[in-house]
Amino acid sequence: MLQPPPAEPGMREDEVDTPALILDLDAFEANLDTMAARLAPTGAKLRAHAKTHKSAVIARLQMARGAVGQCVQKVGEAEALAHAGIDDILVSNEVVSPRKLARLAALSPIARVQVCADDPAMVPVLEAAAAAAGIRLSVLVEIEVGARRCGLEPGAPAAELAARIAASKHLAFGGLQAYFGSAQHKRQPEERRAAIAFAGACVERTLEHLRAHHLDCPIVGGGGTGTFAFEAGSGLWTEIQAGSYIFMDADYARNIEPPPFRHSLFVLAQVMSAPAGSGRAVVDAGHKAAPIDSGFPVVFGRPDLAYVGASDEHGVIEARDGALPALGEKLRLIPGHCDPTVDRYDWYVGVRGGRVECLWPVTARGMMA
Amino acid sequence: MLQPPPAEPGMREDEVDTPALILDLDAFEANLDTMAARLAPTGAKLRAHAKTHKSAVIARLQMARGAVGQCVQKVGEAEALAHAGIDDILVSNEVVSPRKLARLAALSPIARVQVCADDPAMVPVLEAAAAAAGIRLSVLVEIEVGARRCGLEPGAPAAELAARIAASKHLAFGGLQAYFGSAQHKRQPEERRAAIAFAGACVERTLEHLRAHHLDCPIVGGGGTGTFAFEAGSGLWTEIQAGSYIFMDADYARNIEPPPFRHSLFVLAQVMSAPAGSGRAVVDAGHKAAPIDSGFPVVFGRPDLAYVGASDEHGVIEARDGALPALGEKLRLIPGHCDPTVDRYDWYVGVRGGRVECLWPVTARGMMA
Repeated sequence: MLQPPPAEPGMREDEVDTPALILDLDAFEANLDTMAARLAPTGAKLRAHAKTHKSAVIARLQMARGAVGQCVQKVGEAEALAHAGIDDILVSNEVVSPRKLARLAALSPIARVQVCADDPAMVPVLEAAAAAAGIRLSVLVEIEVGARRCGLEPGAPAAELAARIAASKHLAFGGLQAYFGSAQHKRQPEERRAAIAFAGACVERTLEHLRAHHLDCPIVGGGGTGTFAFEAGSGLWTEIQAGSYIFMDADYARNIEPPPFRHSLFVLAQVMSAPAGSGRAVVDAGHKAAPIDSGFPVVFGRPDLAYVGASDEHGVIEARDGALPALGEKLRLIPGHCDPTVDRYDWYVGVRGGRVECLWPVTARGMMA
Repeated sequence: MLQPPPAEPGMREDEVDTPALILDLDAFEANLDTMAARLAPTGAKLRAHAKTHKSAVIARLQMARGAVGQCVQKVGEAEALAHAGIDDILVSNEVVSPRKLARLAALSPIARVQVCADDPAMVPVLEAAAAAAGIRLSVLVEIEVGARRCGLEPGAPAAELAARIAASKHLAFGGLQAYFGSAQHKRQPEERRAAIAFAGACVERTLEHLRAHHLDCPIVGGGGTGTFAFEAGSGLWTEIQAGSYIFMDADYARNIEPPPFRHSLFVLAQVMSAPAGSGRAVVDAGHKAAPIDSGFPVVFGRPDLAYVGASDEHGVIEARDGALPALGEKLRLIPGHCDPTVDRYDWYVGVRGGRVECLWPVTARGMMA
């Protein structure tokens, strides 16, 4: 149920209805180009993560600049993107439900799909889904590289799972998934470097065991906006799964030596209440419009203002110098975390030079299953 | 863009695909009846808050038990409910955008709509919107009663705004909005009682000034699931705006003397990874599927398990006694906060006796504008 777009092409940004997801097209395009330029000399390819943008339009712009495909976290995201013409999709995540695996396999006529596994118990389940669809499904083995989330033990256990996959009639061993999510947000670059060095050792150990099983490893996938230079420079990773680089957010900006990308994504909010003498202004963007799992949003270009409190539909703004924004004033908020923020909107409002240039649907909004 | 329902009527709950929003119909219906029974002797009416359920089906069930109408926070929610036949809707919030006010006024042929204001500067804006639509718009004055969010000063300033509204050709003074949001979640009942006593004094002072202006006050609205007994028992509030009572959530359950309602809303999650020897199981419901603005979800009926970490699409489960759930096992999670959790789903899966009985759309999912 799409809401009507909050704007029309040609409008001034200050005419856009709120809350709205604003995409600064100049900064966004610069980010696309920066990542392509950074990866070109490394030999690692970009398989951009669509969990960030959930947009077939943006996926296509990334692939036009050399991305080999897209990653998603959910089968519903894969469906939405495949139906919109994206034809090479890795579910960089475990899928255990036979119903979901059948949905994923059903995309094969229109897209190359791959999925991850981290448990030998899944091999017969994956085999059955692929056999029922009459396809050969490529499965990557996710290894634990420090994130302490999904992924089985590197080395022998991972190689044994790879061998079982390779030996399964309707499955193919696609490679290794080696993503260290929490490393992206370590504040010190040396912490990030050390984390990816550890992950690299896990990958190398696993590659040795794969060679002992005479198994090729077509893909080593991982890396994100906070660490991609380390993975890409290692010679180990073949596909970089960065997503947030196109937008940046307030959390990435807090890293010491933040990533070399510009803020391009904003939540446009309007002051809906400014009670006289209260010392606060209230905007119409609370934690539903700008999720706070990675901290409050930051008011863009207004160091004099601070977003200090969020309820479902309200955000409280205080002024460091006492001068509050006026009733009706619109503010650009830098989201604390871009991925869940995008998922709250039906439309990107693309802005250039202060004018609305385009409206793009958030193709896979809300696809959690 | 609705996703297909995760279940079909007649399925066993353990067959429902995940993450899914489960509604325990027995507990839900008991909650509907409990609130109706608690309010009946007080004379206060229920104007249930649809920000919680976002469902025209549930709104109708509440109104069938005596609710006089619904509250919403956003014009988009009012549109979705009005289009689905809900005909008495208060936007219990300020709306400052003329575009949104035009959308709200445009609902008048199919629903009685009312809105709040807390600033004299809005009177000409509201008047213009009502005049353009050729209607008389009822406007409630929101007063600050301790929540420190929206709302102007009680007493003379509020009464003066009411008088300006009443004197405006296409506006009518609808009453007072006196909601103390943060009081709902004060842990001690005595803190909640004292907060509502303070709010009541604000209401009384304002009513005195309204009488001096010879203004009737048709509605005094406010109250929520944590404090409704105090507002309803005060003789001051005429409409109780409770929402969460139909579902309860983990945060309300942490109150000392929690509200007299049963947990009826759950996020059904599945173990998607259980790495051997890791000491954790990972479920497919992270903070996108079960928002954490009011804390982590709680595993229902499993005091041996704890949900200890959330990323976008993953939740980490640890076992207090060391026995972790198995790969593929499904768990009911009690959401930390029901309102934003509901907003993440397209469908309620109504369950009774372990079987799926009905599927209801989340009518106003994602309507933030």
